[in-house]
Amino acid sequence: MSVDRDEVRDVVAEVRLGKPRALGRLISWIENASPALPMIMKELAPDTGRAHVIGLTGAPGVGKSTTATSLVRAFRLRGQRVGVLAVDPSSPFSGGALLGDRVRMQEHALDPDVYIRSMATRGHLGGLAVATPQALRAFDAAGFDTVIVETVGVGQSELEVAETADTVLVLLAPGMGDGIQAAKAGILEIGDIFVVNKSDRDGAHALVRELRSMIALAERGPHDWKPPIVSTIAYQDRGIEDLLDAVERFRASQVATGRAKARRVARARREVENIALAKVRAEFRLNGEAGLDDLAEAVSRGELDPYAAADRVVVGS
Amino acid sequence: MSVDRDEVRDVVAEVRLGKPRALGRLISWIENASPALPMIMKELAPDTGRAHVIGLTGAPGVGKSTTATSLVRAFRLRGQRVGVLAVDPSSPFSGGALLGDRVRMQEHALDPDVYIRSMATRGHLGGLAVATPQALRAFDAAGFDTVIVETVGVGQSELEVAETADTVLVLLAPGMGDGIQAAKAGILEIGDIFVVNKSDRDGAHALVRELRSMIALAERGPHDWKPPIVSTIAYQDRGIEDLLDAVERFRASQVATGRAKARRVARARREVENIALAKVRAEFRLNGEAGLDDLAEAVSRGELDPYAAADRVVVGS
Repeated sequence: MSVDRDEVRDVVAEVRLGKPRALGRLISWIENASPALPMIMKELAPDTGRAHVIGLTGAPGVGKSTTATSLVRAFRLRGQRVGVLAVDPSSPFSGGALLGDRVRMQEHALDPDVYIRSMATRGHLGGLAVATPQALRAFDAAGFDTVIVETVGVGQSELEVAETADTVLVLLAPGMGDGIQAAKAGILEIGDIFVVNKSDRDGAHALVRELRSMIALAERGPHDWKPPIVSTIAYQDRGIEDLLDAVERFRASQVATGRAKARRVARARREVENIALAKVRAEFRLNGEAGLDDLAEAVSRGELDPYAAADRVVVGS
Repeated sequence: MSVDRDEVRDVVAEVRLGKPRALGRLISWIENASPALPMIMKELAPDTGRAHVIGLTGAPGVGKSTTATSLVRAFRLRGQRVGVLAVDPSSPFSGGALLGDRVRMQEHALDPDVYIRSMATRGHLGGLAVATPQALRAFDAAGFDTVIVETVGVGQSELEVAETADTVLVLLAPGMGDGIQAAKAGILEIGDIFVVNKSDRDGAHALVRELRSMIALAERGPHDWKPPIVSTIAYQDRGIEDLLDAVERFRASQVATGRAKARRVARARREVENIALAKVRAEFRLNGEAGLDDLAEAVSRGELDPYAAADRVVVGS
């Protein structure tokens, strides 16, 4: 996709003014790994570093989308501009985003201070790891106070996405993916705040108890934050004010201890590293295509081992 | 971790004889990214390429472990040697594998033709993408006819792991992660065979219907395999024979059309590429440590954009 320089400049200027259509176009360019991105990110850099990024993760079906929508409502009542970025591996079954952004947007359709958008990056060189922080930069430069990053699955990449947030909310629900399942999926260790959603269902109390004992078992220094557990019924907006209070307490403690800044630097570090790796990977694709296929054939026949093959690729590129 | 050359040779020789303790040690070396791996993989290469790798994926709680255990039983009845590799992000809450390998192994404790092992790779340089194919090589060289790779979460990395299999089973269960949730998580597109487990529960028929219409919607050539849906109750071993039959039909069709081989070459290609990328990443860590931190600081303050920072890293390394 070729992008016109003047067009880029116009879009960047409008993103800075918080125009939703421009933000939407920019995120599409990010999804499609537009060659204009380095130029765009350079322009946006001075306007970034302000938004509070909240990661929202948990197994499919625990109510992440509903919770995000309810959080948007609550943040609006506190006067904040709020964005939602739903990170969504695309599927040929859907031909794109399945999260029903339009349905979710309806309530806020006339509110210029809310922007909800899903982003599909499956197959993208560098994947979620490269695209997500850039989309967050776009929201940030567009002046959103809070951006909620909602992941779809619970896997290693999704954990990495959630970990890039300033504040990580881990959602669970009784009956689907209990505490042990959550521990298996590795999501317990990344939560700054745990949310037991659908807390009117059977098993909610047991889940809270189970979580509490798992949190108590985790190693933690005397001054470390102890993740609270907040019970919610998101589709009725219940417990959401408590959740916002917990988020603000966590945020204040992070800023006070200097950890907020350290986390931002770590995020930037990963971002730079991932862009660098994507560049290297693109080089392989460009230069090593034919050679790599021959090596792969030999490896698949057992005539060559994969390390020896990798040595030839790295030396050859 | 330093590894003695003679020790490596002994372990490799015993892996070739199918000794379970040696296989266990080798997989630990893979988990820990032992510097001896290139040497080991070179030795094992001629003995690889025979095992049939079955990927087993699905949301937490659908019954992947139970299904794997039931499949092992069924494959044993057909006289096969079977391995299970459970790919498991480690968690500080558990101090390692949570999947209860020992419990699961009990039934087969005296059977030398079954080996069940979980592997934790979180934080590993190159991650699951590098460690999983190597562990499969180890099982393969140890003479297992079938190796089941079971993933824990449903995320991008887990999808990639499942995709490396010769045959991919996607598990669903009524009530937890319905069809739409599965589509969101991107697991529908990678299934060669769909398994509706817990099929005695309410909603099983609706889930099968929903899956059937989603499969019908997918684009497919006239000679392409159409993924069947098999209903199971894994903890009672019900439907597992049907599942094995479906696996064998799929396998025969893949071999007949030449796709089995193409898939192996693609797997080897990704394996080589991922090892090469891990090497490059390790170079960053070794050479770029201090510089990368400074760049990350500047990026986090908005003084530099991440692309410009990445350029300095790649040029500088």
